[in-house]
Amino acid sequence: MTHASLNTRFAQHFALTTPLALAPMALATGGALAAACAQAGALGLVGGGYGDLAWTQREYTLATELLKSDAAAHARLGCGFITWKLDENAQALDWVLTQKPCAVMLSFGDPRPYAARIAAAGAQLICQVQRLDQVPQALEAGAAVIVAQGGEAGGHGANALEGRSTFTLVPEIADYLAAHAPHTLLLAAGGVADGRGLAAALMLGADGALVGSRLWATQESLAATGAKTLATHTSGDGTARSAVFDILRRKNWPAPYDFRAIRNALHRQFEGHIAALQASPDAARAEYDAGVKAGDFTRAHATVGEAVGLIADIPPAAALIARITHQAQALLAP
Amino acid sequence: MTHASLNTRFAQHFALTTPLALAPMALATGGALAAACAQAGALGLVGGGYGDLAWTQREYTLATELLKSDAAAHARLGCGFITWKLDENAQALDWVLTQKPCAVMLSFGDPRPYAARIAAAGAQLICQVQRLDQVPQALEAGAAVIVAQGGEAGGHGANALEGRSTFTLVPEIADYLAAHAPHTLLLAAGGVADGRGLAAALMLGADGALVGSRLWATQESLAATGAKTLATHTSGDGTARSAVFDILRRKNWPAPYDFRAIRNALHRQFEGHIAALQASPDAARAEYDAGVKAGDFTRAHATVGEAVGLIADIPPAAALIARITHQAQALLAP
Repeated sequence: MTHASLNTRFAQHFALTTPLALAPMALATGGALAAACAQAGALGLVGGGYGDLAWTQREYTLATELLKSDAAAHARLGCGFITWKLDENAQALDWVLTQKPCAVMLSFGDPRPYAARIAAAGAQLICQVQRLDQVPQALEAGAAVIVAQGGEAGGHGANALEGRSTFTLVPEIADYLAAHAPHTLLLAAGGVADGRGLAAALMLGADGALVGSRLWATQESLAATGAKTLATHTSGDGTARSAVFDILRRKNWPAPYDFRAIRNALHRQFEGHIAALQASPDAARAEYDAGVKAGDFTRAHATVGEAVGLIADIPPAAALIARITHQAQALLAP
Repeated sequence: MTHASLNTRFAQHFALTTPLALAPMALATGGALAAACAQAGALGLVGGGYGDLAWTQREYTLATELLKSDAAAHARLGCGFITWKLDENAQALDWVLTQKPCAVMLSFGDPRPYAARIAAAGAQLICQVQRLDQVPQALEAGAAVIVAQGGEAGGHGANALEGRSTFTLVPEIADYLAAHAPHTLLLAAGGVADGRGLAAALMLGADGALVGSRLWATQESLAATGAKTLATHTSGDGTARSAVFDILRRKNWPAPYDFRAIRNALHRQFEGHIAALQASPDAARAEYDAGVKAGDFTRAHATVGEAVGLIADIPPAAALIARITHQAQALLAP
């Protein structure tokens, strides 16, 4: 049963028992993690990411199978995509929509071209934004939920010059929605890793929180074991946001987005020389590729945000969601 | 009377009626603002800034005179300094210590060389940090209070690569203090501009909050009227952090610090060309100087953080502190 303070509009809208959503992290949020979160009462969003059809089919189908005897949990299953990649190929989105997801989350690009087909499939549209000025486009697309992502988040987000932080972005968007779209729900993303973060997100005006890094570091996550282990002994000082790993991975991300991960030796080598790396990436890419192959995270990337400093173990997702929920309850109703 | 949820260890330690501290903003936090905050029940820290003796004497003396008939408020008066400037000349600190301040706040540098004389004068030491790894040095200096400043803060702070955000820095330092120095108090700084921010700071594990930008935009603040007016119609998307204004103002700040202000036309012109600006600053400095002289904030800097998006008026400080306090009370004990 949901405690009153956590029975937010967002929890009610998706019949959740805790106002949490799993971030659809590309390659890390597979079907097992999404299913575990949905069973634990949170919104479970498979990480459709770059829109690889085979990967999305496999992982979304796995989640469906894991939830086949739990209709309530299955009704909390959705999928997320990188919007600008859909502009190249939307096959994975179109396939997911045949599976009747409860929600589709779009991040990093203009969601409007996909709004009609998502609505027609009966799925709720969740739009992630990094700045206040991206909100009107999301509302025009008919978003039921806005995710306000601060730059402390792991993985992709807006770069330092264009981006915002969770602490100011959430209340400012809450004010905007109250004035312009009072029925649109708001989630905080970036930095939420425990019950303190969930309680703070609610105080700032959010209806819940989207959790990435902390759920990345769970048993069910598809992240590499070596990366997860490294995360448990990395402080929040130990990440950085830059274009380094996108260049090394041959990802052609548009402005204003870049990528936060653990600031390892290879990142430090190139973080002050982005233009030079962009111009001559071959030697660095060979180093990076060798690091990935060897599971050597002094060269390969480990995709976590500043909240890594709050991660000390690799629990099952359900235990973690219960822990976050109980801590938030205790703080909100002491 | 202080509401129970706001009667934190920090409020008790300094006999405050609300767990708020005024940020000692160089040139903006004069004696009138510090006195108004102290009278409103908050900790009032004069902005000693770069350590200009005459300015500090004038403004601190003004605060003392304004509070001469209010001993309780006078006991909430202190002063803040930029630590690395004290390394060049600490006369202003030494003068302030003769005035029996309740607290001295040191930011941006090693506080240890000043700890003994501050303790000998009976003042509490408040140390502002931008990263977890700066905390041990502050504890070694005997800090009674740690201020955890996120990069969303206006004015100086750690740059994007080295810095942290309030949302993750506060709980991580709270955990560190719980383990290593449980009697040391913790304030959140950066992004706190209303009762939502104060309530969120407490949820994240802080004992209170240090407020800069929001108190900069008050009647008593010494910030230019044109800058304050501009702030009331600037969104939180409209600031940026870089070295631009430090170079233009001939301030020789050490790494890893830079400066957040409204991202005006002159900032946009140079933000992508920092090295070139550093190498040939003369023409840009002439533009900047002309902007300051004319009160033209398309060229002069207006020093606010991302919380500027939560600023819509220029109230007296006492009214603002009451507003923040009441909103936080309502959120924490609905």
